[in-house]
Amino acid sequence: MTEPVFDWQKGFIVDFALTGGLSATAVSTRRTLSQMRGMFADSEACEKMLTSSDPVVYEFYELGAPENAGDVAFGTSVTYPGRVGNEYFMTKGHFHTILETAEVYYTLSGEGGMLVENPEGETAFFPMTAGKAVYVPRRFAHRTVNTGTAPLVSFFAFRGDAGHNYAAIETKGYRKLVIEGEDGGIRIINNPKWETT
Amino acid sequence: MTEPVFDWQKGFIVDFALTGGLSATAVSTRRTLSQMRGMFADSEACEKMLTSSDPVVYEFYELGAPENAGDVAFGTSVTYPGRVGNEYFMTKGHFHTILETAEVYYTLSGEGGMLVENPEGETAFFPMTAGKAVYVPRRFAHRTVNTGTAPLVSFFAFRGDAGHNYAAIETKGYRKLVIEGEDGGIRIINNPKWETT
Repeated sequence: MTEPVFDWQKGFIVDFALTGGLSATAVSTRRTLSQMRGMFADSEACEKMLTSSDPVVYEFYELGAPENAGDVAFGTSVTYPGRVGNEYFMTKGHFHTILETAEVYYTLSGEGGMLVENPEGETAFFPMTAGKAVYVPRRFAHRTVNTGTAPLVSFFAFRGDAGHNYAAIETKGYRKLVIEGEDGGIRIINNPKWETT
Repeated sequence: MTEPVFDWQKGFIVDFALTGGLSATAVSTRRTLSQMRGMFADSEACEKMLTSSDPVVYEFYELGAPENAGDVAFGTSVTYPGRVGNEYFMTKGHFHTILETAEVYYTLSGEGGMLVENPEGETAFFPMTAGKAVYVPRRFAHRTVNTGTAPLVSFFAFRGDAGHNYAAIETKGYRKLVIEGEDGGIRIINNPKWETT
């Protein structure tokens, strides 16, 4: 399969299946569990899982939007169901390099939420189900978390030059973790890596 | 129904039904045929229709995104099926006030297309069906046209400060018209108002 050429100056069409999100023509970027070592709180559970398989945790589309303030980067994101220990599968998440740029996600299928935090330490978790749009404001790092049993699929759009800053959030991770409680319910708890430093 | 308050600084969730596009909480802006007088080529057919009813031609959501280059305006657009004479129901369409800003539309249901043109006279028609995303490049006026029998629904996103310039395209309309041919097929023809001047 050859990745199609997208003409950002003349316009183009690209397909993302409703409601599965995958494209028949564009090529996705996949993140496997081994590429996310250290991002889940329970490292031991992660290593144990990796001895038997290396599942795709999520995939998304980067179509190559021009790094121009007038262009719009867009695509779909698919986060697969699963857990590492009691922590739900999630995306790496990132700040935008241009911190003062927002992003919108429109949920196409699945269940979960958007975990956000800003440099000042404000956090929130916005539930996502089909038909719900989540506005990630300027200055907020954001991570998709799948708390359900099917893929969590969303269509996203942000400014073409916003950029991705993964490093800033990778050292200690997010201030909050999204886990499955012993009663099977969803819990948002403090990340111990933030509490102990 | 009270329109909910959207917090563009802290983030929020808003619902747009999959795949119908309408929100149970946000309030849409509706355009009726009488508000589009003069925009369809066949004025006589338009006036005749208006003697019996004033149908909603399309509706869309303006959630009040800050006019800030870092914010993202978004919502859904629903263009209803119908024709004025042989010309399909369509949105008014507009340039962005900041001409160098693009927009993306992700089609949720229905059939039709996006008619675009830039000030230099380049035109294109991008077909829209469920699952197709259309990239409207910087500098291009854009109008949604419903060529089917069900509502044409899409989710859109663009820069918060882009603005809408309706006037520039209202004098003579678009360079192209989208009509139903005598064989029932879709035709893109030259707009006589552009040819005769």
